[in-house]
Amino acid sequence: MTAQEANAQFKVVVVGQVARDLVLQIERMPDDGGSVPVQKRQELLGGKGANQGVACRRLGADVSLVGVLGDDQAGHTVLAQVAADGMDVNGVVIRDGAPTALLLDIVQPDGVRRLFEDVDSRVLLEAGDVRASEDLLRSANAVLIQLQQPAAAVTAALDAADPDALVVTDGAPPDNQTRERVLRRAVVVRADVEETEALVGWKPADLTETIEAAQKLLEEGPRVVALASPTGGNVVAWPGGHVVLPFIEEEPVDPTGAGDAFVAALTVGLLHGQDPETAAWWAAVAAARVVGKAGGRPELDLDEIRQAAANARRR
Amino acid sequence: MTAQEANAQFKVVVVGQVARDLVLQIERMPDDGGSVPVQKRQELLGGKGANQGVACRRLGADVSLVGVLGDDQAGHTVLAQVAADGMDVNGVVIRDGAPTALLLDIVQPDGVRRLFEDVDSRVLLEAGDVRASEDLLRSANAVLIQLQQPAAAVTAALDAADPDALVVTDGAPPDNQTRERVLRRAVVVRADVEETEALVGWKPADLTETIEAAQKLLEEGPRVVALASPTGGNVVAWPGGHVVLPFIEEEPVDPTGAGDAFVAALTVGLLHGQDPETAAWWAAVAAARVVGKAGGRPELDLDEIRQAAANARRR
Repeated sequence: MTAQEANAQFKVVVVGQVARDLVLQIERMPDDGGSVPVQKRQELLGGKGANQGVACRRLGADVSLVGVLGDDQAGHTVLAQVAADGMDVNGVVIRDGAPTALLLDIVQPDGVRRLFEDVDSRVLLEAGDVRASEDLLRSANAVLIQLQQPAAAVTAALDAADPDALVVTDGAPPDNQTRERVLRRAVVVRADVEETEALVGWKPADLTETIEAAQKLLEEGPRVVALASPTGGNVVAWPGGHVVLPFIEEEPVDPTGAGDAFVAALTVGLLHGQDPETAAWWAAVAAARVVGKAGGRPELDLDEIRQAAANARRR
Repeated sequence: MTAQEANAQFKVVVVGQVARDLVLQIERMPDDGGSVPVQKRQELLGGKGANQGVACRRLGADVSLVGVLGDDQAGHTVLAQVAADGMDVNGVVIRDGAPTALLLDIVQPDGVRRLFEDVDSRVLLEAGDVRASEDLLRSANAVLIQLQQPAAAVTAALDAADPDALVVTDGAPPDNQTRERVLRRAVVVRADVEETEALVGWKPADLTETIEAAQKLLEEGPRVVALASPTGGNVVAWPGGHVVLPFIEEEPVDPTGAGDAFVAALTVGLLHGQDPETAAWWAAVAAARVVGKAGGRPELDLDEIRQAAANARRR
């Protein structure tokens, strides 16, 4: 039995951003008024929601996406890409008259990237968009919710999830009321350094403070807290313990989507009944696989990740 | 009689680049690893050939474009835009399996722009592409040729133009043999500072040297030479005289396409029987109209430009 077959029972719904992702690789940035040739162009499915969805799918889960596209040509192209990547599109809303979000990712040879985000407010989720997918959400084993979406949509997703579902939130809550709801309901809370500040009220300056922040958040309800450290790498904490995950990529090409693969693999690991520390190592390996490739859409193989995670952990 | 009607007899063929032009306006460039929101996104018809063609069309000429698009979705979108802008598309080649050129134009509030050019060699013109439009070229009153295209295509265009046609070249010749042919055949030669170096063998350091370079080029055949000066503005020279054109834009927004409007208006002015000095003032005004607007596709009105040029000249 392959990992994918073993895993087919897991239903994951991702609530978040779906976008066009235009990735341009260049040798160097042009000066003011200057021009540079593009070494490589890719036009991909993108956005945090789609990236997390693709990663969960590649790790073997059944994935439904809940997000909003414009009714432009790009929207229809992106919708076809979501379907081609094996995800269910019934929760994807095509909004009349709105432009599909565009993420432009300019990547240099050393893996340094610059992101230009064009996200019209009309392609953010509304509570009604989420409620229209209530049945999907209620039947999911895991619900991944991006907190960059408006508060009403986040709340609707938290409310619709099954009480036994693994609710995973990613990012900073849009307001204090939503923060309370998130910490009360989420099983897993994931944040980068800036987002951690929004969650705990102060910005961790080092690894020790990141661990402190994770422990403080655990006291408010979540069972697993995963925070990026300002010193690089990630901390994953659970009641009574934590692990510090180093960056384990070899040749960084493009950090886009590494955080999304981290969340996806952490979720899938926990769905597989792994303890938080093991799931955290899966997450670190999945993130490393993404950073080695331009464009935020990783090839991921669960068996390979499981093995690489065991090896990385032993070191 | 409107200017457009008076002008309808002029047939202009533009031989050069046709592309998608993605224009993003931002407040500031992101740092390494950072992200910024996009203030405004435009997806336009672009490329020097298309920009010069649109400008000639808006100045009232009948315009045919000779250029190459890919057979992708973008190519078909761009082709429709060329037609919607009132240009003849019979000379536009759709190349099997090639990606349509993408120009990404990132513009800041002060009008500073950075250009990212993704032009696959397969969407450059081949001699056969140009020869397939021989009848178009032979019947044109003016032929605008971009010297960024391969030597064989440039030569084919020079050869196909009617002996009485106003042949206008823009840019630096790809090699020395092409340089000889260009200077022998072109009536008008246009170049920026870098391109002037390729034409005369040295780079003008100031206005005096730019005038010297123009006079040297006039000795080799062209009747009008238009060179950008490193000190800003342009020099237009003819046997026995020259004029220095200042930049006359008020609020610079995006310099994209200003040089293309300059060439187009200079060409249309000369077709209208204006002396080089008058045509040069038309060109300077047309360029100013473009710089005041993002995206390189100006609204141009011949009567307004004629009047504004007369006013600017009087100052």
